[in-house]
Amino acid sequence: MPANARQIVLVRRPAGAARAGDFAIREVPLAAPGEGEVLVRNLWLSLDPYMRLFMAETGSIHGSVPLGEAMPGGAVGEVIASASEAMPVGALVVSMAHGWRDHYLARADQLQAVNREAGPAQRWLGLYGLTGITAWGGIHGVLKPEPGETLFVNAAAGAVGSVAVQLAKRAGARVIASAGSDAKCAWLRELGTDHVVNYRTEDLGARLAELAPEGLAAAFDNVGGEQLEILIDAAAPQGRIALCGAIALYDSANYRAGPRNLFATIEKHVTLTGFNAGFYFPRAPEIIADLAAAEAEGALVETETVVEGLAAAPQGFVDLMEGRSRGKMLVRV
Amino acid sequence: MPANARQIVLVRRPAGAARAGDFAIREVPLAAPGEGEVLVRNLWLSLDPYMRLFMAETGSIHGSVPLGEAMPGGAVGEVIASASEAMPVGALVVSMAHGWRDHYLARADQLQAVNREAGPAQRWLGLYGLTGITAWGGIHGVLKPEPGETLFVNAAAGAVGSVAVQLAKRAGARVIASAGSDAKCAWLRELGTDHVVNYRTEDLGARLAELAPEGLAAAFDNVGGEQLEILIDAAAPQGRIALCGAIALYDSANYRAGPRNLFATIEKHVTLTGFNAGFYFPRAPEIIADLAAAEAEGALVETETVVEGLAAAPQGFVDLMEGRSRGKMLVRV
Repeated sequence: MPANARQIVLVRRPAGAARAGDFAIREVPLAAPGEGEVLVRNLWLSLDPYMRLFMAETGSIHGSVPLGEAMPGGAVGEVIASASEAMPVGALVVSMAHGWRDHYLARADQLQAVNREAGPAQRWLGLYGLTGITAWGGIHGVLKPEPGETLFVNAAAGAVGSVAVQLAKRAGARVIASAGSDAKCAWLRELGTDHVVNYRTEDLGARLAELAPEGLAAAFDNVGGEQLEILIDAAAPQGRIALCGAIALYDSANYRAGPRNLFATIEKHVTLTGFNAGFYFPRAPEIIADLAAAEAEGALVETETVVEGLAAAPQGFVDLMEGRSRGKMLVRV
Repeated sequence: MPANARQIVLVRRPAGAARAGDFAIREVPLAAPGEGEVLVRNLWLSLDPYMRLFMAETGSIHGSVPLGEAMPGGAVGEVIASASEAMPVGALVVSMAHGWRDHYLARADQLQAVNREAGPAQRWLGLYGLTGITAWGGIHGVLKPEPGETLFVNAAAGAVGSVAVQLAKRAGARVIASAGSDAKCAWLRELGTDHVVNYRTEDLGARLAELAPEGLAAAFDNVGGEQLEILIDAAAPQGRIALCGAIALYDSANYRAGPRNLFATIEKHVTLTGFNAGFYFPRAPEIIADLAAAEAEGALVETETVVEGLAAAPQGFVDLMEGRSRGKMLVRV
């Protein structure tokens, strides 16, 4: 059993974009597990845009991390010491709280034991975890596309976006997606996306008007801000938009702000539905089975961008926020 | 046949609240109906908050009225001269375009002939017209309340609000409503509203937290702006909000703007659905039958505020916007 754990702590609240120097690494002593506790060695950490909200003074439901404290987040690891009969040494466990660290002590009943045989351990952070359940919730819980409908996904080369694109294609939708580089766009075409727009070099609103002259029946918004405004303008009458995140706003003074054209929803009978994976985790067994079936059919491929080592997590997070990853962003501890 | 028609024209675009002096009355010569046309004498005109949008430089779907032109809007009248076999003299007709005037000439095929026997003529502007169909669309098309659910309506003493309250009660919802005077609140209690909040003298957000500690399952928003923000904060997890109008914003620089707390919809899986009556007019026969049934059951009462004479329409509109009417606001020509 190691004497110390290494953690990434928040040392500065960013004004604007997060920087690697907003974080520091520290060592803290590790105690032996008390009754009902286990000691976990993390194998993989998840890096996700919503973590930017932890760094702000006024947090969202995710909470605000005090300066000097370790960053929370999703992690998958194995039990290396146990004082819990329910969770023996060797168990593979997922935590949504104990990311950004190499070891941690926790109550066994606050961890989720997962099946080692279901695939690579990091899948419990990706396709069978927050990423897959979020994408499934947005497509099948909120948007429910009908075959032939035109559905748009932005930040489509990201973890959630790339799964959402594939689930929408599998449901029979005509899928338009956007991403921020030609390489990402080419990759999205390989995934079967019908039309891809590079939002940095093309006018997204104009391209959507060309590609969907009757409007978007459905849209999956990971970006918020001006992109959400474009989607509201591009929505078809009675169109529906799933609000998954607002990465474009997370660095701004009020990431909670709505669009400047909400009234267009009244004019066009458009529906905006916010959602997050928390509402779909109770259905996880059913959802994971469906995602596994999609993968077995060859309709769904998960792609990863891997950062090596805990110390690289801060720069990995910056890269994620600046669009330099593809698919699921992970830290191999 | 009269030689002239009187019209209310827009002579000044308001900066802020509309004033009676933004309008003027003028006479224009009336021609005899040409082939397929009819001459209509208006009996009743509708005054509605959305008409404020006609007065702005940049209009919504409703369009912007050029200075010096007559205001459009709903009206019910009778044909007094006809060159259309389909629409004889004496027919009762509704127009959504030819309000704010005492006579007009129009193509018969652009008017809707309505049943004289269905009740007072002005009902085709109120319960069986824009007002009733809007309220029905918001309650039964968008919110679909389940028995026992808590549903909130703001501007509830207005034309649409007071019908929405009663339809929600009839559907079995527990209804909370807000209005801007104690007299209006007392009247809403008489209509069967479970709880009423005077938003001018009470803290609406605090009262909603007391009256619905588990949150609002549904809300019917006629007000927009800060009141919509309060409703988003008050919404229950998976709550739904019907966006019907934004009277609080119509005088502002951008009435189209969204709430400063949209992100809360992501945190709580809240749905915002904008709508307008245009999407429900195709179902008008079914909707009117249901509204008539509600009235016959004694579950629905329509209340009117009547302004006497065309010349009083501008001040009537100002009174409507400043909250001095109750129920449906009408001009008896």
